[in-house]
Amino acid sequence: MAQKGEFDIIREFFQRPVADAGVHLGIGDDAALLAVPAGHELVVSTDTLVAGRHFPEATAPFDIGWKALAVNLSDLAAMGARARWVTLALTLPDSDEDFLREFSRGLFALAEREQVSLVGGDTTRGPLALTVTALGDVPLGAALKRSGARVGDDLYVSGTVGDAGLGLRLELGQWLDEIAPAAAEFALQRLRRPEPRLGLGFALRGVATACLDVSDGLAQDLGHLLAASRTGAVLELDWLPRSAALAGIEPAFADVLALTSGDDYELLFTAPPSARERLAALPVTRIGRMTEVPGLQLWRGGNPVEMPVAGFTHF
Amino acid sequence: MAQKGEFDIIREFFQRPVADAGVHLGIGDDAALLAVPAGHELVVSTDTLVAGRHFPEATAPFDIGWKALAVNLSDLAAMGARARWVTLALTLPDSDEDFLREFSRGLFALAEREQVSLVGGDTTRGPLALTVTALGDVPLGAALKRSGARVGDDLYVSGTVGDAGLGLRLELGQWLDEIAPAAAEFALQRLRRPEPRLGLGFALRGVATACLDVSDGLAQDLGHLLAASRTGAVLELDWLPRSAALAGIEPAFADVLALTSGDDYELLFTAPPSARERLAALPVTRIGRMTEVPGLQLWRGGNPVEMPVAGFTHF
Repeated sequence: MAQKGEFDIIREFFQRPVADAGVHLGIGDDAALLAVPAGHELVVSTDTLVAGRHFPEATAPFDIGWKALAVNLSDLAAMGARARWVTLALTLPDSDEDFLREFSRGLFALAEREQVSLVGGDTTRGPLALTVTALGDVPLGAALKRSGARVGDDLYVSGTVGDAGLGLRLELGQWLDEIAPAAAEFALQRLRRPEPRLGLGFALRGVATACLDVSDGLAQDLGHLLAASRTGAVLELDWLPRSAALAGIEPAFADVLALTSGDDYELLFTAPPSARERLAALPVTRIGRMTEVPGLQLWRGGNPVEMPVAGFTHF
Repeated sequence: MAQKGEFDIIREFFQRPVADAGVHLGIGDDAALLAVPAGHELVVSTDTLVAGRHFPEATAPFDIGWKALAVNLSDLAAMGARARWVTLALTLPDSDEDFLREFSRGLFALAEREQVSLVGGDTTRGPLALTVTALGDVPLGAALKRSGARVGDDLYVSGTVGDAGLGLRLELGQWLDEIAPAAAEFALQRLRRPEPRLGLGFALRGVATACLDVSDGLAQDLGHLLAASRTGAVLELDWLPRSAALAGIEPAFADVLALTSGDDYELLFTAPPSARERLAALPVTRIGRMTEVPGLQLWRGGNPVEMPVAGFTHF
């Protein structure tokens, strides 16, 4: 098959009609021209996925496209932002049309659902890697930061944690005999098609005092929130929300997965006790509270416990 | 040497004080929060540099940092934008501190000179590659696009063209005997430390009818301008501005370099004849005019000539 040039690739796979009136100029010029609404801040996040490091080499191209976008939108969700636009820098070994078709289908499946427009990018030949820059907006002063938690605030996490970590082990061929097929499928789906919690981030504006997304593992990411907020936390292990899939594995492993595995992309946030009633309507679970004593204390049934915690680091 | 983690790398090499009051939140949270001034559009461009493809593997780390930023700022210059902020996604094989120190020095040397703030990014382990997303602003409606050229407009290019192409050949060990040392040094500098023409782009607001930057070679990039503007052009070969370095090589080769070599990052633009007097004060050269006849015609001394033109493609 003839190799397509960069411009053909962009035209065929990445240039789609844009419905957003805020896109004054999209793909095809030296830069995009975008309108940030008055009274809003621009929210910007960049993340790279490298094959073999952030996803197994054999990952389906559709899922790579989905995930590259999802992990960046998750950062916007963690700020309470509305996702608006993305740029994509795609480096791939050759212009494999099957890969590009499926990759762009995965990317646009999520982009169109979330009404996010691809406004620019770059395709380059080289080892497979993707960098997405996600752009959003948030009313001035409404963004959720890592730094606002106060002593006495409750600590929450959305959804369930540890599922993507289980999925990664299954993808690597571990634990296959111990997990029921439906549970395995659920965990793999969590790994392959993370869901950015944009609606939840929006709902947490004015409620959460600090927020971030769980990308590197709950314990490690919580550490960033504690450092930025200059507080400590008590986390009740038995309160950690676990899926049925995680409930099916040995409890000690489940604890480690829930605390240390990455890629769940749930929101971890704090809010004052006065917000409990309001938060009861949202898919979130209270898992602890913020303390003056620095650092993270793990408790079980109200008593401190020791636990080996090793975060998943990308570097 | 112990490997540094991602967070140490960011803190040590990439987190510098930010003077820009428009940066409400910089490096260290899930995303940056930025203020685009009222009445302005946001201008966004993304470019990737891959080792061995966009720069020789042996390129000095300082120059890699400089160039990764310069090529993106050049896109903003081509829009007539003011450069404000950048994010950096850096993938490197190991956390080599010498590399990181020199790389960040090169990046910040240009960033600080141009008053551009690094507001976010990502470091990842993998084959050396860099993706920069550059963000700028421009008053609403003032951006220079590729699409505004009109039949009868003059065609201009800034600075001199073909120098970086000569530099690349020298870097690859070619033509070394034929070029004087001072000329070689000049050409290598043009390749290694491109200068984004931000001041010129600013000066062309309200004057240029269409504009882009010469990254892939003058003939190829002019083709994009012609396609976007639906015009043709006549280009006078003898009017192409050449440096003393290029004047030192065989004229036929110099023509090919001036027309087809990339990485010069000069601005190529159109303006009505009524702007000639105003443009005489700027470091630009008139090289042709826009025609109703589609395509690019090369002329020499007022007569059409044939010439083999092969662009430098990144893909």
